Amino acid sequence: MPHIALDENLPGITALFAYRPETAAPLGQLAEVLLRGPSSLSVGERELIGAVVSRGNDCTFCSRSHAAVAAEALEGGLSVVEAAWKDVDGAPVSAKMKALLHVALAVREGGKSVSEDLIAAARAEDATDLEIHDTVLIAAAFCLFNRYVDGLGTPAPDDQDAYQDTGIRLLEEGYTRL
Amino acid sequence: MPHIALDENLPGITALFAYRPETAAPLGQLAEVLLRGPSSLSVGERELIGAVVSRGNDCTFCSRSHAAVAAEALEGGLSVVEAAWKDVDGAPVSAKMKALLHVALAVREGGKSVSEDLIAAARAEDATDLEIHDTVLIAAAFCLFNRYVDGLGTPAPDDQDAYQDTGIRLLEEGYTRL
Repeated sequence: MPHIALDENLPGITALFAYRPETAAPLGQLAEVLLRGPSSLSVGERELIGAVVSRGNDCTFCSRSHAAVAAEALEGGLSVVEAAWKDVDGAPVSAKMKALLHVALAVREGGKSVSEDLIAAARAEDATDLEIHDTVLIAAAFCLFNRYVDGLGTPAPDDQDAYQDTGIRLLEEGYTRL
Repeated sequence: MPHIALDENLPGITALFAYRPETAAPLGQLAEVLLRGPSSLSVGERELIGAVVSRGNDCTFCSRSHAAVAAEALEGGLSVVEAAWKDVDGAPVSAKMKALLHVALAVREGGKSVSEDLIAAARAEDATDLEIHDTVLIAAAFCLFNRYVDGLGTPAPDDQDAYQDTGIRLLEEGYTRL
């Protein structure tokens, strides 16, 4: 049960966006820039960062919905996400992505957990300043989204198949139409 | 030292906003709606939520800068913020604000830490759905800002006096000019 009166026909964050359009607009725009805007990281890679951070934060709605987008966008599909959820270093992603996922997981713990060593490891795999910046901000943004969704008690099915249509739609339409 | 190349003349998040204006725009707009937009919570009360969450996250720049804004806006000034940092229940704020600050501190821990009991306690002090919603989203937003500022290693003086001008300016000008 949600902690406030929300439209029960809308899942997860979509009910919150409908409840408060004034905050939905900048939140959707932030997600659009970070996850769909011009970047040297692919859409699948950026969605994977979101799915991994959300899983770390135990947010069912965000982890499953962004896993669904990443699965559509990444070669290898859902198995890549599931491998990264289990163990970043064992996932079939580039060495640069592994290093950036470690940075993202440190951000999840807290800003001061991002050590010089983690940044140096990302740089050693040729991560740029902008890639490091965006990885930190994507991870921080999901720390917001996860807390928003669960802090207001929105319901979410814990069945990956239930999110496939959402994944296809979010990949095609992005975040400004939400 | 910041983890990426930033303008060293700009403190904390302002250097990050200058580095990536595409993400600064929605982040500034989000802060403006939540902290300055129409609300039954005062500007000082909303800034206090940000200062308390930021202190919980050990983010020097955010806790001190939003403490400075709250100090300008709240009757009682900085002593109110310092009391809330020490112990929410002992702070000279309303019973409703104490209950909302407990909700905010639960959000800081994680979305699922927001219990039915915490929500019921806020409702018992006449907190509305919108006040509960905005408290959760303000707390979640500071979980983003704190991680963004510290996750990229931006420097910040740990001296409250150094933030007084910032507090006055942010109270007067808000967040969309950043």
